[in-house]
Amino acid sequence: MNDMVLLAHGDGGVLTHELVRDLFLRHFPNRTLKGLTDAAVFTGLAGRLAVTTDSFVVSPLFFPGGDIGKLAVCGTVNDLAVSGAGPVYLTAAFMLEEGLPIADLDLIASSMARACEEAGVEIIAGDTKVVGRGHLDRIFINTAGIGIVPGALDLGYERLAPGDRVIINGPIGDHGMAILAARESLDFAGRLVSDCAPLNGIINELLREIPREVKMMRDLTRGGLATAAKEIAVAAGCDIHLEETAVPVRPEVRGAAELLGLDPLYLANEGKFMAFVSAPSAEDALAVLQTHPLGRSAAIIGEVSGGSGNLYLRTPFGGTKYLDMLVGEPLPRIC
Amino acid sequence: MNDMVLLAHGDGGVLTHELVRDLFLRHFPNRTLKGLTDAAVFTGLAGRLAVTTDSFVVSPLFFPGGDIGKLAVCGTVNDLAVSGAGPVYLTAAFMLEEGLPIADLDLIASSMARACEEAGVEIIAGDTKVVGRGHLDRIFINTAGIGIVPGALDLGYERLAPGDRVIINGPIGDHGMAILAARESLDFAGRLVSDCAPLNGIINELLREIPREVKMMRDLTRGGLATAAKEIAVAAGCDIHLEETAVPVRPEVRGAAELLGLDPLYLANEGKFMAFVSAPSAEDALAVLQTHPLGRSAAIIGEVSGGSGNLYLRTPFGGTKYLDMLVGEPLPRIC
Repeated sequence: MNDMVLLAHGDGGVLTHELVRDLFLRHFPNRTLKGLTDAAVFTGLAGRLAVTTDSFVVSPLFFPGGDIGKLAVCGTVNDLAVSGAGPVYLTAAFMLEEGLPIADLDLIASSMARACEEAGVEIIAGDTKVVGRGHLDRIFINTAGIGIVPGALDLGYERLAPGDRVIINGPIGDHGMAILAARESLDFAGRLVSDCAPLNGIINELLREIPREVKMMRDLTRGGLATAAKEIAVAAGCDIHLEETAVPVRPEVRGAAELLGLDPLYLANEGKFMAFVSAPSAEDALAVLQTHPLGRSAAIIGEVSGGSGNLYLRTPFGGTKYLDMLVGEPLPRIC
Repeated sequence: MNDMVLLAHGDGGVLTHELVRDLFLRHFPNRTLKGLTDAAVFTGLAGRLAVTTDSFVVSPLFFPGGDIGKLAVCGTVNDLAVSGAGPVYLTAAFMLEEGLPIADLDLIASSMARACEEAGVEIIAGDTKVVGRGHLDRIFINTAGIGIVPGALDLGYERLAPGDRVIINGPIGDHGMAILAARESLDFAGRLVSDCAPLNGIINELLREIPREVKMMRDLTRGGLATAAKEIAVAAGCDIHLEETAVPVRPEVRGAAELLGLDPLYLANEGKFMAFVSAPSAEDALAVLQTHPLGRSAAIIGEVSGGSGNLYLRTPFGGTKYLDMLVGEPLPRIC
């Protein structure tokens, strides 16, 4: 195979076939993809299905804790998982810049394969396009995902009620700070590691233990915890109160964020979600999360009250701040 | 709304919400998408499902006969349709360059909405990312699609048998030549029009009339008729013989291709497919196709024989050429 991606790798001809056979099928050796038909046909999914799509344009491509490939699998798996769906199949579409080292593509595909294995999903359909130099920055990946929502599960904004607790599975801001530090080659880059991880396992544990008491969930990606919480308050027509001291933030993330004038509440995460749980079950939920490797630092960080879409933050000094959605991302290409 | 796409339109915050609400939801006003949840949940699909993904990076964005939006819907609809699946739902993921005129995005979304209506599909999940100027050429779109394969339908390489006829639904090369002419501002640009169209309607007619006699189908996109036929011959382990004089090509496409030294057999199409049909049903299939607006010039263009993956072209002068897959696309960013 060539050392670099050529325009002809995207023309649907001989080189496209070589790339698919020698690189993608080597990493994703499942029977459905091997068929190389126009669409992947599968059986066995029925009832309530969930579908989602996400494109990944992160820069740099490789960062502490992950790379664009791991992100592309985890991001879509997590969108399904917080919707209550067990992820089953992914599609993967690669947009490549002419000149991308094949070795980088190989690392990325290998990382996707590992993330798929960890999440228990299969890539069953794919696509590759190549554009000329300068028309795209190295590689973008789109993944779409399909999952099954258990029949009895009922999640949604409309289930939120005053008193419900807000629970998070760990410290916030790791992904956003890791990307920024890697991009800007900041001195503390080595200690900042993305939290990128598939959340379907831990969410599955939670839903198995207290299926009826989880009201809704949301992963905390672009816009961070504050933007997600504000969105939910508005959509549900309630108020949400967060306790600043209860929100876990790693010291190194807090330090780097302070240095750069950023608020961890608005930093992106790729392995964090919040769950809204009825008050009597909140401690049970916390216990379930804390027994999972991705929930060791889980915490109850706030609660829901009647209201009209406001998000409040109680500060350590006893004050209260209104929080709004993010306006103007300081960090484009975070995922 | 602003006149141009800003980085903040992709940050997951206030401007992202505005863009989704004021532009995308206006064009795609379905209930599932309106929920704006992490994943779209739906019921009613069961049995054999088909899924496919495709990214669209065409340049120019607008061309005679279509635009990147129409292409993004038709391309994915057609991949499902030739697999025998009735397309039902699409996802749409937009990757935007900072500075893209909002008016262009509006035209593109509007065109997608019209194509969805024509194809009878709904966009139920979406995603928007924005990258800085120079990191992506204006707009890329990924669509993934889900469809249902009728229970009794049996399509596949393994069904091809000596004597099966190859049928095409109309003239080849229209899309490839239209894109090239528009890109290079060639004089004859006005007469070259892309064939971009959703094929699920005409394929549905065919499968309704002769469900058992259609052995397999393939749409003729990148790499054109010759690459698709060669792929099928190799995968099925048979030979395919095409009759050059039987393959419909518009005079203006033939003329432009000759001028540029291109072979219409390798030019991209976005509204053409070939069907392999048992010999006794070939005339019936042709009649069905010719009664549909997208099949007026349908033709029987060749047949299958025993063999080992060769593609032959009988020329008007009685000679025979071996054809191979496309090697080295003369036209990148064709779809």
